[in-house]
Amino acid sequence: MSRLLLNCDMGESFGSWSMGLDAEVMPFIDCANIACGFHAGDPGIMRATVALAVAQGVLIGAHPAYPDLAGFGRRSMACSSEEIRDLLHYQIGALDGICRTQGTQVAYVKPHGALYNDMMADPLTLRTVIAAVAAYDRSLPLMLMATADNRAAQALGDEYGLTLWFEAFADRAYDAVGHLLSRRLPGAVHHDPAQVVEQALRLARGEALVASDGSALWLRAHTLCVHGDNHASVAAVRQIRQALDAQAAP
Amino acid sequence: MSRLLLNCDMGESFGSWSMGLDAEVMPFIDCANIACGFHAGDPGIMRATVALAVAQGVLIGAHPAYPDLAGFGRRSMACSSEEIRDLLHYQIGALDGICRTQGTQVAYVKPHGALYNDMMADPLTLRTVIAAVAAYDRSLPLMLMATADNRAAQALGDEYGLTLWFEAFADRAYDAVGHLLSRRLPGAVHHDPAQVVEQALRLARGEALVASDGSALWLRAHTLCVHGDNHASVAAVRQIRQALDAQAAP
Amino acid sequence: MSRLLLNCDMGESFGSWSMGLDAEVMPFIDCANIACGFHAGDPGIMRATVALAVAQGVLIGAHPAYPDLAGFGRRSMACSSEEIRDLLHYQIGALDGICRTQGTQVAYVKPHGALYNDMMADPLTLRTVIAAVAAYDRSLPLMLMATADNRAAQALGDEYGLTLWFEAFADRAYDAVGHLLSRRLPGAVHHDPAQVVEQALRLARGEALVASDGSALWLRAHTLCVHGDNHASVAAVRQIRQALDAQAAP
Amino acid sequence: MSRLLLNCDMGESFGSWSMGLDAEVMPFIDCANIACGFHAGDPGIMRATVALAVAQGVLIGAHPAYPDLAGFGRRSMACSSEEIRDLLHYQIGALDGICRTQGTQVAYVKPHGALYNDMMADPLTLRTVIAAVAAYDRSLPLMLMATADNRAAQALGDEYGLTLWFEAFADRAYDAVGHLLSRRLPGAVHHDPAQVVEQALRLARGEALVASDGSALWLRAHTLCVHGDNHASVAAVRQIRQALDAQAAP
Repeated sequence: MSRLLLNCDMGESFGSWSMGLDAEVMPFIDCANIACGFHAGDPGIMRATVALAVAQGVLIGAHPAYPDLAGFGRRSMACSSEEIRDLLHYQIGALDGICRTQGTQVAYVKPHGALYNDMMADPLTLRTVIAAVAAYDRSLPLMLMATADNRAAQALGDEYGLTLWFEAFADRAYDAVGHLLSRRLPGAVHHDPAQVVEQALRLARGEALVASDGSALWLRAHTLCVHGDNHASVAAVRQIRQALDAQAAP
Repeated sequence: MSRLLLNCDMGESFGSWSMGLDAEVMPFIDCANIACGFHAGDPGIMRATVALAVAQGVLIGAHPAYPDLAGFGRRSMACSSEEIRDLLHYQIGALDGICRTQGTQVAYVKPHGALYNDMMADPLTLRTVIAAVAAYDRSLPLMLMATADNRAAQALGDEYGLTLWFEAFADRAYDAVGHLLSRRLPGAVHHDPAQVVEQALRLARGEALVASDGSALWLRAHTLCVHGDNHASVAAVRQIRQALDAQAAP
Repeated sequence: MSRLLLNCDMGESFGSWSMGLDAEVMPFIDCANIACGFHAGDPGIMRATVALAVAQGVLIGAHPAYPDLAGFGRRSMACSSEEIRDLLHYQIGALDGICRTQGTQVAYVKPHGALYNDMMADPLTLRTVIAAVAAYDRSLPLMLMATADNRAAQALGDEYGLTLWFEAFADRAYDAVGHLLSRRLPGAVHHDPAQVVEQALRLARGEALVASDGSALWLRAHTLCVHGDNHASVAAVRQIRQALDAQAAP
Repeated sequence: MSRLLLNCDMGESFGSWSMGLDAEVMPFIDCANIACGFHAGDPGIMRATVALAVAQGVLIGAHPAYPDLAGFGRRSMACSSEEIRDLLHYQIGALDGICRTQGTQVAYVKPHGALYNDMMADPLTLRTVIAAVAAYDRSLPLMLMATADNRAAQALGDEYGLTLWFEAFADRAYDAVGHLLSRRLPGAVHHDPAQVVEQALRLARGEALVASDGSALWLRAHTLCVHGDNHASVAAVRQIRQALDAQAAP
């Protein structure tokens, strides 16, 4: 069993506004998805966040988004394929520019918010993103959502020679095809820490989850998406980290 | 005599707004100062401008600016040294990101507008810019204004191991210390094409210009700043190009 | 027959970038749709455009848009009803603020670009826009697209006590239900000035147009959308103006 | 003795980012300086802040700023007088637009951050601001800093027929001419709540403060600037409110 990486959105402050407990959660994660200035993050925030990641030996991921600061990148925008390609290259490059002055570089890409959702919902957008990352640097993995059947996405990744890192969630319930249950439905979010840790361990071991209809759901996941928004979520990340480390120990 | 490079601001369109005759002037220049999105340029404009430069074998320079789209980067902003450093790394990196997908990279840096003026007027800002470019890539030359006495700037460049490319103007009159004569003064701008070409040739040959007080002014210049705003300025660039080429021919 | 008003998008410059021949076309129109800073226009451009309109006795319309300067407001954004309401009030208010310092005020509202298209395609968005304009000032007409059947829109306007000004195009072909023929289809745009003037006169007289399938199409239109982008379009507006004036003369 | 008004910066959140305890401090203040979207605030935040103010019967002030979201309006920008005038009208108008949909309107103007500082440091900027507010609505008071000698400012206000509301600080030490002591100097900020309340009461009674050199300092102040950043500052505002109300009681 290869190690299940913990990834977390980081660098989501902007100017005088703070968001997230980046310094607190950084010691427990493997991959920092760093905002690149279009939905959050400014050059100074990006520098500080890269410094935090470097200090903790955490991989730096570009977290590019639609150009929508007021909407935090959560509002879908009707961008063309060319526009999506170009905004990806711009944002990845900007973060890489800040990384190189600290002796590091972007190690993977995870689109943010509405761009992530559009990529998962629309095969043309997924192709656009995959092609754009491959054009930037074929050695950079792209992080995207694991579902019960990753084959279509994997075929696209293979076509461009791009590594895909599928991500899963430990604190969310899934339906039978491996989509996240809508937050409007009861039971969509796991609030019991023990249940969250249990789901993380199952995913790490490659065991099936129980989908919302009771069926067994196998998710092939390379990474787990965790959150550093507040003290409770940081505590949950620490618990997941400890459980994964304990399991991995010989 | 080493070759006098012609540099020109490029990629100054934004979204649906056009500015400059980039395609027309590109064949005649050596160095394209490409806007990086903070005062002009957007990811799509940047891509197209890089493509034009690549097609003509023109060096690509980052043309970073204060974050002021409405003011076209021409309004000085009270940014701290850290803010200037970070906005330089962000913008140079963004352009480099777009360059790498076209098999090229940023070859030099020339700050834009008010940032350029502040760098020339304030030694701390010049140090900040030099340190920032050196931290990004010590092999990238920084373009700045030639004056009668470049020694203070040169000493700063040497301190950081950075190459400086001093630039002069063929269409502007200078005062005795090598500052551009204010545009509000009569004779500040040369309108006679023959005079412009003559000044370019003198600069290329390392000959003295005649300053506004009649004294001889030696400017050590590696590059000449030219303009592609309109058809007249493009015609002037073509004439300068032809005169320089004729002179350089054996 | 009441007078058919000519409306034209204006104030679409931004900062150092120019767009449109506002001063040239202003004498021939009745209604200036002035950009409010979210897709184009900045406070200085807005002031200058309002001054032009005042000088020519032209009605001033707010032309609010999604917050998308790089996309010129032409990319649909997934804004909530609350967000649309608030961005309308902000932009109308901003233009009104600039109007009041010149002794005038906003006289109507016409959403721009993707917001206009979304309003025409989605009844909830149309309701949101109508409610927002009514909340701002029930006496402001809302400009929207005339179709063969305006009843649903009119019912919504009546519900909020808002006047609707339906607009038609003189230079575009229509299908049988009064939608503009896609620009990708042959014959979608009328290039013959005589045909444009003829269509304007028919609309002014309340006569039927010939739809793309040959059927008669009655469009109830209060206003005609014209363009001041270039010299050819300004010339067309002048011709329409003269034809309408000649017809209106006793 | 007329009542000493308490004014507080409000609506400084933006998009997904929160700042300030607006709801907590609103019950204790008289005047809410509401950000207008250029340094903080977006249309939705503005609407919510206006609603809070209306619910508590608090006067609404426009708090316009330089266009610098990343710098929170705290970086001086070299704007021309025309640019300052226009950005004031735009921002005041935008807030007025949101006010009118809630049955209220802007009641005064207080420039924010660097624009406020520039206005106090540069007589031409002060004239520009005064002229701009007067052009918008001569009945709107302008809030500015009280010093030992307000005569120059008052003369400018009188010239334009504009009411000036001078503001003082209860938690800051002053020098002999009535400028705030730099925060870098010891004793610049009063941390003892009793001292803050005492200074507020002295200002309310029109009594002299003790300047940093021991001299008596009379400040003619109509309003006191208070802060709602955190729970400690809200507690301080409540104490000031109670002390002022107790004193004002017959």
